[in-house]
Amino acid sequence: MNKKEEIIRKNREALKALDWELLDGDDADFESDQGKGIAPPPLQKPYPDNTELIDLVHPPFKSIAQTPIAKVIDDRRSRRSFTNTPLTLEELSFLLWATQGVREVDGSKVWTKRTVPSGGARQPFETYLAVNWVDDLEPGIYRYIPIEHKLLKVKDEIPDQQQKVKEASYGQTFVGKCAATFIWAAVPYRAEWRYSIVAHKDIAIEAGHVCQNLYLACEAIGAGACGIAAYDQKLMDGIIGVDGEDEFTVYLSPAGKIDK
Amino acid sequence: MNKKEEIIRKNREALKALDWELLDGDDADFESDQGKGIAPPPLQKPYPDNTELIDLVHPPFKSIAQTPIAKVIDDRRSRRSFTNTPLTLEELSFLLWATQGVREVDGSKVWTKRTVPSGGARQPFETYLAVNWVDDLEPGIYRYIPIEHKLLKVKDEIPDQQQKVKEASYGQTFVGKCAATFIWAAVPYRAEWRYSIVAHKDIAIEAGHVCQNLYLACEAIGAGACGIAAYDQKLMDGIIGVDGEDEFTVYLSPAGKIDK
Repeated sequence: MNKKEEIIRKNREALKALDWELLDGDDADFESDQGKGIAPPPLQKPYPDNTELIDLVHPPFKSIAQTPIAKVIDDRRSRRSFTNTPLTLEELSFLLWATQGVREVDGSKVWTKRTVPSGGARQPFETYLAVNWVDDLEPGIYRYIPIEHKLLKVKDEIPDQQQKVKEASYGQTFVGKCAATFIWAAVPYRAEWRYSIVAHKDIAIEAGHVCQNLYLACEAIGAGACGIAAYDQKLMDGIIGVDGEDEFTVYLSPAGKIDK
Repeated sequence: MNKKEEIIRKNREALKALDWELLDGDDADFESDQGKGIAPPPLQKPYPDNTELIDLVHPPFKSIAQTPIAKVIDDRRSRRSFTNTPLTLEELSFLLWATQGVREVDGSKVWTKRTVPSGGARQPFETYLAVNWVDDLEPGIYRYIPIEHKLLKVKDEIPDQQQKVKEASYGQTFVGKCAATFIWAAVPYRAEWRYSIVAHKDIAIEAGHVCQNLYLACEAIGAGACGIAAYDQKLMDGIIGVDGEDEFTVYLSPAGKIDK
C-alpha cells in the first residue's frame, strides 16, 4: 500500500462509525467530560459585558422568503457570480437566523436549540461574516451572537478585504466578491465535552446542515451561495481572528444578490 | 498528552483544510486519478440491464410542499416520534428528489448536478431506504436510482426489519419505527477520483447538505426527520447490503408522518 492509499484508507475509516471494539484492551480513559461531571463550556463564544452589539431584524420573517419550499429546492444552484446590490439588513438577519438562529436556551445553560440540528444540541459553530455590501453595516469582520440574535463587530474592514478572502480561498475570486462571506468556525470542545473522541465526524456533517440552509434561504431572497471547503487554514483563521486550535474555520460560503 | 487528547488532536486536524506543506518532501504521489487521465467511475451504482425499476412521481411538485420556506425553517425540529400513517408515493418521491434528485447529467458522464451541492459535482452518495409503511410499496430495502428517478428493490423485508434497524442504531427505537429510514452510503472513490486525499471532509459535510434537505422537505409535508450518526457500522452496512469498504453507511435518518 503506497502513502496515498494509506491516507485514503485512514480517511475512509474516519467517515465510518467508530468501532469501539478496536479500542478494547486500551487502558485509556475515553469518558467524556460531561460523563465526568465537568461543567459544560459556554453556549456561544463569550464577549465583554460592555460590548456594543448591533441589532438585527427578528423572526418571524413574513415579508421575505415566502417562496414555497418545493420551488426553492428546485431552483437552488451553486452561485458564483453576485451583483453589487446590497443585502438589506433584514435579508442578512434572515440568513443568520436560518443558519444558526437560537429558538430555545436550556434553563441550565447546557444546550441551545437552533434552526439547524446538532448532535446532543451541542451546536459547535461560531458564524463570522466578511461584510462588503450590506445596508446599514460598515464593511468589516463581524461575528453573529446567536442567543441575542445580534451582531458583534470583530474588526474594521481589512485593507483589500475582498482580495484577502480571495487569497485565503486559493484565488477563487467569487468567494470574496459578494455582499458577505459566511465563515463558519468550529469550537470543537463544545461537542467533545459530550462526545469525547467521536465528536468530529458530526461537526463536519453539521457544517453541511448549516450551509444547506444558507443555500435555500439565499435562493428564496434572490441571492445565492456556494459552499467552499478549499481554503488556506491559516489565512482564513487570521481573517476572522481565531486561534486555529480551540476555534478554527471549517467551511465557508459567499452570499450575495444574483441576476436570474 | 494522553491517548484521548491525542485522538482528539488528530480528529481536529482532519476537520481543518489540509496543509500541503506538511507533505512537502514526501516523495509520495498524491495526484488524483482524474489528474492522471484515468476514466471517472459510474455516476451512480450500476445495476443489471434487466432490473425492474419502480416508478416514482416526477418533479415539479406543485400540489405538496407549498409552505413558504421561512416558515419551514422556523418549524423544523428533530422528530423522534412518528404516526403509522403511510407516506404516499408522491411524498416519498419528493423526499428522494429533494435529497438526491438529478437535474443535469454531463454529456461526457463525468458529473451529475443534483438538488444538493457537491464539491466538483462528484455526488458521492447512494440512498437506501428501509421501507415500513409507504403507499404502493411493499416493506423492504430499496435503493434510489437518481438518474432515472426510480427505485430499485434491493431485498424483501428483513425479518423484524424495524427491530434490526433499531439494533443497528444502538437501540434508538424511533430510527426504525417510521414510514421509511433513509440510509446514506458513501462511494468514496467517486470523490477521491477528483480530490485524492482531500476528498473525505467534504463527503461528511455533504451528508449534512443532503439530510438538511430531508428535514425541511419532511417538515413541509407533515412529516419529520432526525439525522443519526450513532450507529453500528457493520450492522447497518449489512442491512443495506454494502461491502463496508468501497461503499459504506455514513449517515441516516428516519422519515415519517408526525402529529403536530
